[in-house]
Amino acid sequence: MIIVMSARATPEDVRHVVGRIEELGLKAHLSKGVERTIIGVIGDERLLKKEQFSLLPLVEDVIPILKPYKLASREFKRENTVVDVAGVKIGDGRLTVIAGPCSVESEEQILTTARIVRNAGADLLRGGAYKPRTSPYAFQGLGEEGLRLLALAREETGLGIVTEVMESSEVDLVARYADLLQVGARNMHNTKLLRALSGVGKPVLLKRNFSATLNEFLMSAEYLLSGGNTGVVLCERGIRTFVEYTRNTLDLNLVPAVKLLSHLPIIVDPSHGTGRHDLVLPMSRAAVAAGADGLMIEVHPHPADAFSDGEQSLTPDMFAQLMHEVKAVERAITAPAGA
Amino acid sequence: MIIVMSARATPEDVRHVVGRIEELGLKAHLSKGVERTIIGVIGDERLLKKEQFSLLPLVEDVIPILKPYKLASREFKRENTVVDVAGVKIGDGRLTVIAGPCSVESEEQILTTARIVRNAGADLLRGGAYKPRTSPYAFQGLGEEGLRLLALAREETGLGIVTEVMESSEVDLVARYADLLQVGARNMHNTKLLRALSGVGKPVLLKRNFSATLNEFLMSAEYLLSGGNTGVVLCERGIRTFVEYTRNTLDLNLVPAVKLLSHLPIIVDPSHGTGRHDLVLPMSRAAVAAGADGLMIEVHPHPADAFSDGEQSLTPDMFAQLMHEVKAVERAITAPAGA
Amino acid sequence: MIIVMSARATPEDVRHVVGRIEELGLKAHLSKGVERTIIGVIGDERLLKKEQFSLLPLVEDVIPILKPYKLASREFKRENTVVDVAGVKIGDGRLTVIAGPCSVESEEQILTTARIVRNAGADLLRGGAYKPRTSPYAFQGLGEEGLRLLALAREETGLGIVTEVMESSEVDLVARYADLLQVGARNMHNTKLLRALSGVGKPVLLKRNFSATLNEFLMSAEYLLSGGNTGVVLCERGIRTFVEYTRNTLDLNLVPAVKLLSHLPIIVDPSHGTGRHDLVLPMSRAAVAAGADGLMIEVHPHPADAFSDGEQSLTPDMFAQLMHEVKAVERAITAPAGA
Amino acid sequence: MIIVMSARATPEDVRHVVGRIEELGLKAHLSKGVERTIIGVIGDERLLKKEQFSLLPLVEDVIPILKPYKLASREFKRENTVVDVAGVKIGDGRLTVIAGPCSVESEEQILTTARIVRNAGADLLRGGAYKPRTSPYAFQGLGEEGLRLLALAREETGLGIVTEVMESSEVDLVARYADLLQVGARNMHNTKLLRALSGVGKPVLLKRNFSATLNEFLMSAEYLLSGGNTGVVLCERGIRTFVEYTRNTLDLNLVPAVKLLSHLPIIVDPSHGTGRHDLVLPMSRAAVAAGADGLMIEVHPHPADAFSDGEQSLTPDMFAQLMHEVKAVERAITAPAGA
Repeated sequence: MIIVMSARATPEDVRHVVGRIEELGLKAHLSKGVERTIIGVIGDERLLKKEQFSLLPLVEDVIPILKPYKLASREFKRENTVVDVAGVKIGDGRLTVIAGPCSVESEEQILTTARIVRNAGADLLRGGAYKPRTSPYAFQGLGEEGLRLLALAREETGLGIVTEVMESSEVDLVARYADLLQVGARNMHNTKLLRALSGVGKPVLLKRNFSATLNEFLMSAEYLLSGGNTGVVLCERGIRTFVEYTRNTLDLNLVPAVKLLSHLPIIVDPSHGTGRHDLVLPMSRAAVAAGADGLMIEVHPHPADAFSDGEQSLTPDMFAQLMHEVKAVERAITAPAGA
Repeated sequence: MIIVMSARATPEDVRHVVGRIEELGLKAHLSKGVERTIIGVIGDERLLKKEQFSLLPLVEDVIPILKPYKLASREFKRENTVVDVAGVKIGDGRLTVIAGPCSVESEEQILTTARIVRNAGADLLRGGAYKPRTSPYAFQGLGEEGLRLLALAREETGLGIVTEVMESSEVDLVARYADLLQVGARNMHNTKLLRALSGVGKPVLLKRNFSATLNEFLMSAEYLLSGGNTGVVLCERGIRTFVEYTRNTLDLNLVPAVKLLSHLPIIVDPSHGTGRHDLVLPMSRAAVAAGADGLMIEVHPHPADAFSDGEQSLTPDMFAQLMHEVKAVERAITAPAGA
Repeated sequence: MIIVMSARATPEDVRHVVGRIEELGLKAHLSKGVERTIIGVIGDERLLKKEQFSLLPLVEDVIPILKPYKLASREFKRENTVVDVAGVKIGDGRLTVIAGPCSVESEEQILTTARIVRNAGADLLRGGAYKPRTSPYAFQGLGEEGLRLLALAREETGLGIVTEVMESSEVDLVARYADLLQVGARNMHNTKLLRALSGVGKPVLLKRNFSATLNEFLMSAEYLLSGGNTGVVLCERGIRTFVEYTRNTLDLNLVPAVKLLSHLPIIVDPSHGTGRHDLVLPMSRAAVAAGADGLMIEVHPHPADAFSDGEQSLTPDMFAQLMHEVKAVERAITAPAGA
Repeated sequence: MIIVMSARATPEDVRHVVGRIEELGLKAHLSKGVERTIIGVIGDERLLKKEQFSLLPLVEDVIPILKPYKLASREFKRENTVVDVAGVKIGDGRLTVIAGPCSVESEEQILTTARIVRNAGADLLRGGAYKPRTSPYAFQGLGEEGLRLLALAREETGLGIVTEVMESSEVDLVARYADLLQVGARNMHNTKLLRALSGVGKPVLLKRNFSATLNEFLMSAEYLLSGGNTGVVLCERGIRTFVEYTRNTLDLNLVPAVKLLSHLPIIVDPSHGTGRHDLVLPMSRAAVAAGADGLMIEVHPHPADAFSDGEQSLTPDMFAQLMHEVKAVERAITAPAGA
């Protein structure tokens, strides 16, 4: 942590700050510049609060040096984490595709969709049983019945299941059915849910909140990791900006940024990220080219009849085309340099 | 709902859309323009989904006409709602001030602060017992012990209590102590929590999420209202923008916008909204001048030692000055026109 | 400037960076922490570029300590700057109100409006002769004829004139007519225009770009100041955010933030800032309460017929009401503390 | 244009609006819904202003139906526009790569860089002679001397030249040297510059402003097209968001969105878009996969010594690697479906 003193600070003001640092059992290191003095605080700054110094007289600024997260950082663990979901390895260098409907609607709908996406080459099946909806008048999911239908689809197709859990009290229930438990964008900051999931014994898909910085996103992962759950898969799904032609702004820059700063795998959800079925295909190709470890794609046999999010769902034919194209991009970027 | 057909749509394409509208038991109304045909859908559009039409061939756009919320709208209820919190009337034309520390830290801290804010003229006491923190390594609140200390402070000072509830499973516990239950910005979209609070029998302070539009904010209020809880107080606390000199961007434009569209009272939290103690006073004056029904202010006897959010907390002296100044602004804007 | 070395940096890596610092004629100051070494660079960092260090091996981060602006800072000049515009003192503690139509449309329109705003108490007359419009098919202003009509209105009413200049080649022409030359939000980064205005001998009203940070805004002021023009008035007029109920998001937080960091006066334009005539009045009161030195308000005799921006223009009656209310707020916040 | 009447509007209020529509020589078309009446305005809405109706009594909302741009729309011209720049065809289905330094610094620097990028396979050379810089103390470009050096590099390498023009008064000068005239992001709204370029007889590279919506971006293109210049190449270069790990947020979603709505070619500048050399390569691959017609890449022989933007410049080796990888992605996405 670096403390920048005001240009008007006297030696007495500086001594006061140094005294405070030493009271906290840390060491201060002074550097007198042309215009002002700066003070380095030596010790673990993750245990400090900025305001312990920023509110002292004639302190102009307090600048953290370390990242706030530790276990999620690539500095802590240099090799990539690979997360095993029902035998599917996310982050092992091969693209993982998770596909399925936004909501589980009926036995026929989920079984049909599961067969379609498996036949097109998907690795895991997604489907929502508990749905966080903006409107209280909208369909809120089938609940446990939806989980049972997902389990049935797993039996029929062999695909592992990805589904959302919305509250800590439901973690045990959802974990009995799911292979990968999803934390939705609206719950990325739900610390009680994260704590409950840190001990659940199954991997977690953590979606980025609409307005989360990278630091905040990795701090949510840190809740899971520090509680003992190392099976964390990150997911970019769009941020809130001024842009009007997409429902959210899918931020692919996050993918290579995460690769530099963290060891955790990251996948991309272009369905929610764009909110438009006609942008899902090109943005899926782009996500793979940016280095994503996987994709999460909404597919529905009849999008116009979907109970939720039909505008961003692909038809079976569009999904088959998508699989074809993203596999071609995957091959292109993993080909040996001399190819 | 308005359906805009593509300029390339044939009469057959238009008939197809009209047929679909009629299948759903609604009426279609055609308007042929110079370049394209538009179709009005007559009936309650809140029961429709855009994609039921937007995915039909040669439909270019689907434009909703009605607001998605109903019970929260001023159209539904023209007179202002006044919410009674332990005898304090929020929204009755008089400014309500809620003040206290970010977190309850100890008996001495909360009692001292409660006396300070009461003596300076605050109407209600705030204090967090359950804290949603970005870092798993940060102080997470005293839990039920914090609630007990708040109740003790109420006994000592007579001030009603405002405190946050983070999960549906804790609603009953928090409701035993609190006079106004706060839904934090991170939980504005937590539909299970909102549903639990809709039947709790006590009023709710609903904070706007960092990235919530006004429609989304009022839809969260609609969850409470449609579940039977009419005691809803809205709170603006800053949005996420590119701006760097404030932790969030306090968006005072929301205050008069809510007054036009809704009957619910709205207060402003400039402490979280700016994240800087040196901006709290001018932005509090501005909030009152914009028409806010109240303020929520963080006060701490020793901000530099606060367990959380010290950088945005006022000292007792600063709070007394704030009360003096906001009361002057309140008088100025409520004086009769001829004064 | 602070250089943060990677935790993996060897003493050799550190020596390499120090050598580079010394080559540039500056001094390095080392601070060895528990996890990593940081290096303070002693000397005027405004002359350095981050990449001179950030691209060296095992440098993790380069953190500037000084603000990028100098002449615009309150550190450089502690007392408030007061700008004289045709005898009106902006920044002297009294509220200045600039009012008039978006565009000059005709002799009758500008003379009528000038008389209305003068009679209601405005200090200066605004009106656009050169209009930067989003659409090539929209009215682009009367050009020099508009300037002549503004001068006529000045003769008739005694009000000084504020009008926009869009290009360096037109600075001399506009300066012959205007008392305060406006740089529009779209031109805040137009460095050629800023340079031309720095020698014009008349004060400049510098509007904040939709997406400008405070640093960028003050750097544009620095262009004017460093070129010798000390008559700079800043103007907040709304930023681009995700918010949908206002055309822009008027960011009043800027007002007290500028007051802390700069000596320049700052006014607020709630007409462009909100884009809605029904929000102009409350946000004007709020701007004054936040500490703004002035307001800039669009007024039109018949807003529905305005050639541009009618939706945000006030009628004469609304403007008279606004003057009444903002004066009341001004009195409230400038009353002596014991009042 | 659709006019939505308030639920409280009487038949008289509706008649008043209809009268107004008819006064303007247009036709009104009424649709009475369950809750309110809506009125369709039949005629060319591009000639109307919203406020002509929105300010009438009991009008609740006015909704435009048509896009504000016409010549830039795919509806106006269905086939892709191909822009010829010194024999290089942008938009013909083959990827175009523009590369070179941020600023022209010296004869040696530009000639060296030109040879490097040509040898690696670039199609056109970029280099700035006029630089819009945030700081008045930063290097502002070599001016016409820079243009001469670019022409020399063209002679030596055969590469056509792309360079920025900052003001209408300099259009003729820059056009004597450049093959493709660049309008920088800060000038996207500079209507005088756009008008001057609409008659220049050479193609224009139009960069998206940091905060421009797609409508605004295409309206700037409309200035060029409506003035007679059909050689318009669009360029995405990052938007301003809350995100902190990139200097801007490169918004690749724009690429397929433009392809749907417009016939103009679009390229991507990941150097400015991310501001980080270590993200340029993956985001270049992603841009190509998203369907971009070209890339614009900053390359410098010694990035740490660059006069400007060194942090985002690639070394010659990194650029060669980039060319290798983006060509592989290009092949992958253009391979026949059965491959």
